[in-house]
Amino acid sequence: MDLPAGFSAHVANIGIKDATDDFVVVAADRPVPAAAVFTRSRFAGPSVELSRAHAADGTLQAVVVVSKNANVATGEQGRSDATELVAGVAGSLGCRPEDVLVASTGVIGRPYPMDRIRSHLAAMPAPTGDVTLDRVAEAITTTDTHPKTAGARLRTLDGGEATVVGVAKGVGMIEPDMATMLAFVLTDAEVDAATLDTEFRWVVDRTFNSLSVDTDTSTSDTAAVLAGGAAGPVDPADLRRAMLEVCTDLTRQLAADGEGAETLLVVTVDGARDDEQARRVAKSIVNSPLVKTAVHGADPNWGRVAMAVGKADDVDDVHPDRVRITFGDTEVYPTLLDDAALAGLESYLRLDEVRIGVELGVGSGAWTVYGCDLTDGYVRINADYTT
Amino acid sequence: MDLPAGFSAHVANIGIKDATDDFVVVAADRPVPAAAVFTRSRFAGPSVELSRAHAADGTLQAVVVVSKNANVATGEQGRSDATELVAGVAGSLGCRPEDVLVASTGVIGRPYPMDRIRSHLAAMPAPTGDVTLDRVAEAITTTDTHPKTAGARLRTLDGGEATVVGVAKGVGMIEPDMATMLAFVLTDAEVDAATLDTEFRWVVDRTFNSLSVDTDTSTSDTAAVLAGGAAGPVDPADLRRAMLEVCTDLTRQLAADGEGAETLLVVTVDGARDDEQARRVAKSIVNSPLVKTAVHGADPNWGRVAMAVGKADDVDDVHPDRVRITFGDTEVYPTLLDDAALAGLESYLRLDEVRIGVELGVGSGAWTVYGCDLTDGYVRINADYTT
Repeated sequence: MDLPAGFSAHVANIGIKDATDDFVVVAADRPVPAAAVFTRSRFAGPSVELSRAHAADGTLQAVVVVSKNANVATGEQGRSDATELVAGVAGSLGCRPEDVLVASTGVIGRPYPMDRIRSHLAAMPAPTGDVTLDRVAEAITTTDTHPKTAGARLRTLDGGEATVVGVAKGVGMIEPDMATMLAFVLTDAEVDAATLDTEFRWVVDRTFNSLSVDTDTSTSDTAAVLAGGAAGPVDPADLRRAMLEVCTDLTRQLAADGEGAETLLVVTVDGARDDEQARRVAKSIVNSPLVKTAVHGADPNWGRVAMAVGKADDVDDVHPDRVRITFGDTEVYPTLLDDAALAGLESYLRLDEVRIGVELGVGSGAWTVYGCDLTDGYVRINADYTT
Repeated sequence: MDLPAGFSAHVANIGIKDATDDFVVVAADRPVPAAAVFTRSRFAGPSVELSRAHAADGTLQAVVVVSKNANVATGEQGRSDATELVAGVAGSLGCRPEDVLVASTGVIGRPYPMDRIRSHLAAMPAPTGDVTLDRVAEAITTTDTHPKTAGARLRTLDGGEATVVGVAKGVGMIEPDMATMLAFVLTDAEVDAATLDTEFRWVVDRTFNSLSVDTDTSTSDTAAVLAGGAAGPVDPADLRRAMLEVCTDLTRQLAADGEGAETLLVVTVDGARDDEQARRVAKSIVNSPLVKTAVHGADPNWGRVAMAVGKADDVDDVHPDRVRITFGDTEVYPTLLDDAALAGLESYLRLDEVRIGVELGVGSGAWTVYGCDLTDGYVRINADYTT
């Protein structure tokens, strides 16, 4: 997949941890409308602090990503290193530091190898338009098993075509309650910064913010969109649809590639008092270790789904007698299936994607969240990850 | 360990699931002061509903426990079965149904085998004082690897001695945010119901409610205390201390026996704005799958502890530069240990009990919570548990 018109990139290995690509710059040909959301962690690193400030005016020209080192919990040194990195990239591109967003994920509590970063910046080649999106996606990964890209097209107002593309990374420490892992969306659609911000937040809420691998919120979560404008103006509703398509695709890829995951878990709650209640209950289900292990074991143990509904916050208006639970298209509660029918559901639970539905019987609020099963693989990966 | 003076018990196998004991009645010799706390799950079963009503007046004479079947999500049939069970026990003991507390844990969504319960009640022998506490503890278990009992002594006001004993069960679906798994405390101390209620809630808050195995809140959580009075009146502060000793002991046993657990994890947060903030942050740490797997892998990955502090609710006044993190007695942040020193911590993390300490640098609030590591064993147990 190619970068949209008006964007260029530079990808390199500068030896942050090993010999794989770990340094990425994506640049627009000038300062362009942009929007970004970030982790709400109190342990957010200097990358998030700087980027939050730089994105606040709705304009960015470039994004720099350092992977394999989060530059988090590194104190004053970390702040100074992040500022120097951003200044170096801005100097190389000939843009303002305030128009550069920086993101970094990887190990926490280790300073950047600044000697390597400095020598690379001193001789950094100009970004080019022929770097593929796949190469960008690969370079931002840490422990992802594969790079994640997505694309969509939309009509421009003058009858032409614009594109929206996205990359994302992240397999663990993922419960982006307010933001997300790293995800970058680029479009050549022309749109003002305020509209872009509104539409992007609406989309992020329904995609990256509805994803949870393990309830653990990263200190580095960042999602940003840059709208270059080369393709001309578009209907904001069309842009929203295209961004929703791209971000939903990336979210499903992230969930399916969750650490150790073997099954993509999609939980939809409807009949809630409002969307917010539906989201809370859906998160309670998708995050329940007992639900996640039941899915892993292909066990149609709907009692655990009932438990997860019951423990959710603010569900006083939910009455067990009005709740309905489905696995795929099969109702399992209150119609109590017999053992033979439950056993029949096991083959459904062995599919790569499992859908759990809960109808709360209260109102018309609805929400869908994305997660994955909990496996021995998750435990092995995280018990063995080296500080 | 023996029952306190004034209490008797009956333990039997009535074939709820297999040939192990699954039916327990513990009775005082008359209606006595009692207190109880329950799950706040909206999917609480009829046992919890009935017991909540029966404990409300501060008086109970007996507790009946059916294990291996939770009688949850069983609709009208479940309510009717629970009422019949309580009436049968009351009839057999010659007490009021309103003075009987009923608790039940095990599989969700299956009606009781009422034929077996009915025939047992029809011929139930009278409880006796020579049933040991260990036998009671064993009979209330489901998948616990061993029964859990604890005891403490205290002085009575007239210079004699009273005892407090307790039993508890539960290995998974344990995050008793407001109540707990099954735990029963008996004492021959004499105390009025209002004092007993106040002291018991204080103790439960600091013990069972500070325990989490897997963030999943059971539909059946019940903790109750009955004060028989045979030993005579006591100082409430002494009773609180004795109950705290018994319940802390049981809580540590529950945490250490968490499903698949190999390590007891004790997390203390101090320097918080207030106790409540300390508790929230401590829970965020003890529940983090990444912290739990790091402990399992004996990996001194304190960055995950920082992450868990950062993602906790309502920590806007916590500043990373003022936070201090310890493993055992060793500070790991902000003093960044070198790789050799971190490697040295690995042997500490291989002990049966690991203590993580976090000083928030905000105020003087403090709280301790109990949990366990997350292991392949947890996944195996819960992926294979049969509906």
